[in-house]
Amino acid sequence: MIVIKIGGGKALNHAAIVRDIAQLRKTGPQLVVVHGGAAWTNEIAAQLGHPPQFVTSVSGYTSRRTDRRTLEIFEMVYCGMMNKRFVELFQAAGVNAVGLSGLDGRLWEGKRKDRLRIVREDGRRMVLRDDYTGRVEKVNAGLLRSLLNAGYLPVLTPPALSYAGEAINVDGDRAAAQTAIALAADTLLILSDVPGLLRAFPDESSLIRHIPAAQVDDYMTFAGGRMKKKVMGAAEAVQAGVRRVIFADGRGETPVQDAIDGAGTVID
Amino acid sequence: MIVIKIGGGKALNHAAIVRDIAQLRKTGPQLVVVHGGAAWTNEIAAQLGHPPQFVTSVSGYTSRRTDRRTLEIFEMVYCGMMNKRFVELFQAAGVNAVGLSGLDGRLWEGKRKDRLRIVREDGRRMVLRDDYTGRVEKVNAGLLRSLLNAGYLPVLTPPALSYAGEAINVDGDRAAAQTAIALAADTLLILSDVPGLLRAFPDESSLIRHIPAAQVDDYMTFAGGRMKKKVMGAAEAVQAGVRRVIFADGRGETPVQDAIDGAGTVID
Repeated sequence: MIVIKIGGGKALNHAAIVRDIAQLRKTGPQLVVVHGGAAWTNEIAAQLGHPPQFVTSVSGYTSRRTDRRTLEIFEMVYCGMMNKRFVELFQAAGVNAVGLSGLDGRLWEGKRKDRLRIVREDGRRMVLRDDYTGRVEKVNAGLLRSLLNAGYLPVLTPPALSYAGEAINVDGDRAAAQTAIALAADTLLILSDVPGLLRAFPDESSLIRHIPAAQVDDYMTFAGGRMKKKVMGAAEAVQAGVRRVIFADGRGETPVQDAIDGAGTVID
Repeated sequence: MIVIKIGGGKALNHAAIVRDIAQLRKTGPQLVVVHGGAAWTNEIAAQLGHPPQFVTSVSGYTSRRTDRRTLEIFEMVYCGMMNKRFVELFQAAGVNAVGLSGLDGRLWEGKRKDRLRIVREDGRRMVLRDDYTGRVEKVNAGLLRSLLNAGYLPVLTPPALSYAGEAINVDGDRAAAQTAIALAADTLLILSDVPGLLRAFPDESSLIRHIPAAQVDDYMTFAGGRMKKKVMGAAEAVQAGVRRVIFADGRGETPVQDAIDGAGTVID
């Protein structure tokens, strides 16, 4: 079993990723796809007059400010535009994909953060109470297994569902990690618009080729911005029994094949 | 088995419909929901600078002009905003809903109309070749049955998938009719923003209470605009073995219960 996370940057080569996944499926392993849509959400939100805002938590993580209107736009882009774009690409490639959000079948459940402690741009701290964010804590593995056993390719996307039944924005990389853990996946492959974890971002020649699973936390120091949650997800995955996590480049002509062949940053 | 189609008008009482369906599920019958989203699509399309256009076929049916950009907006609204809104409402009401489009698992398949013959406003005829529309001909009943048997409520929405693997805009009422036929449903309930089929639209006191199944085609004469495809779907359903079709008002406080109790237009 391989869980493949396709990042939400515009530089990723969707056609090539879909082609590779269609090919990889023929060689045997069960596959689950998780995708993002951040860049498109920013664009559509601006067009709809509700431009994106990002907040930094007191512990230093950046996330999307998700009020109720943002959540609706987020669902339009992630669950509507992007999820159905991937499902259509897979169907045209002969792969019977089924697109689901974390709401569907309570696929991804977690606690909504009822208070988000952030640092404002002027350095002052404040608490947000109308933010719809959280973290995936439970995965409906039964629903995924029944789809896999019937021959479908699950194509998953945020948001997730709170225990109170509200949609919540969750990090897609960590959701993919929880999915890999719940399915006892062998490999979690995280494709983005960089070649992997870089020792000196953005110098792509500083790619870190290998991280021993036991030392992944030490490498957090090299992760900036969105890479932080990828490393955090990777740490959660390898510590919970996923054999390896690969950060790899989603921009090439054979991105999945290259990653399986050892390109990128391998954590095992 | 009851298939419930929730129309895409803004006047429908979604909260009441969801509450009624949650209650009805407890009394036993298996349920499948199909929904639209036309009014919201018109609004969002205008906001995104691609306002809706409608075309009239030479046989007199009006449908949405669906170029590739319209299809993308259509998916954002139907599969993103509306489908996830319904799934979230059901989840908050304790119903484990799974939202799917016709693309997912090839749930709804049909032939794309590669040429659409229309009548322009000036009365001249022309042929459109870049329109992504079609009609549902095949339903993946196996996927629906496996979800139903596992206790999920399927919540379905257009688009459908062409045999070539392209997304196509299809009429939701006729898709619901094909779904009812494929599942050998007892009842197809079509909720919209009118009380049923009216003998003298828009006079709501002219409601037709009963149509014998064998005579449904004769009643086509009373159907205008969007009601035409509802009557056509009803005819297809009763002629293919669905016991009864009900057109009912989705605007009240107990719309599903009222319809099951005999309000609206009953075709049987």
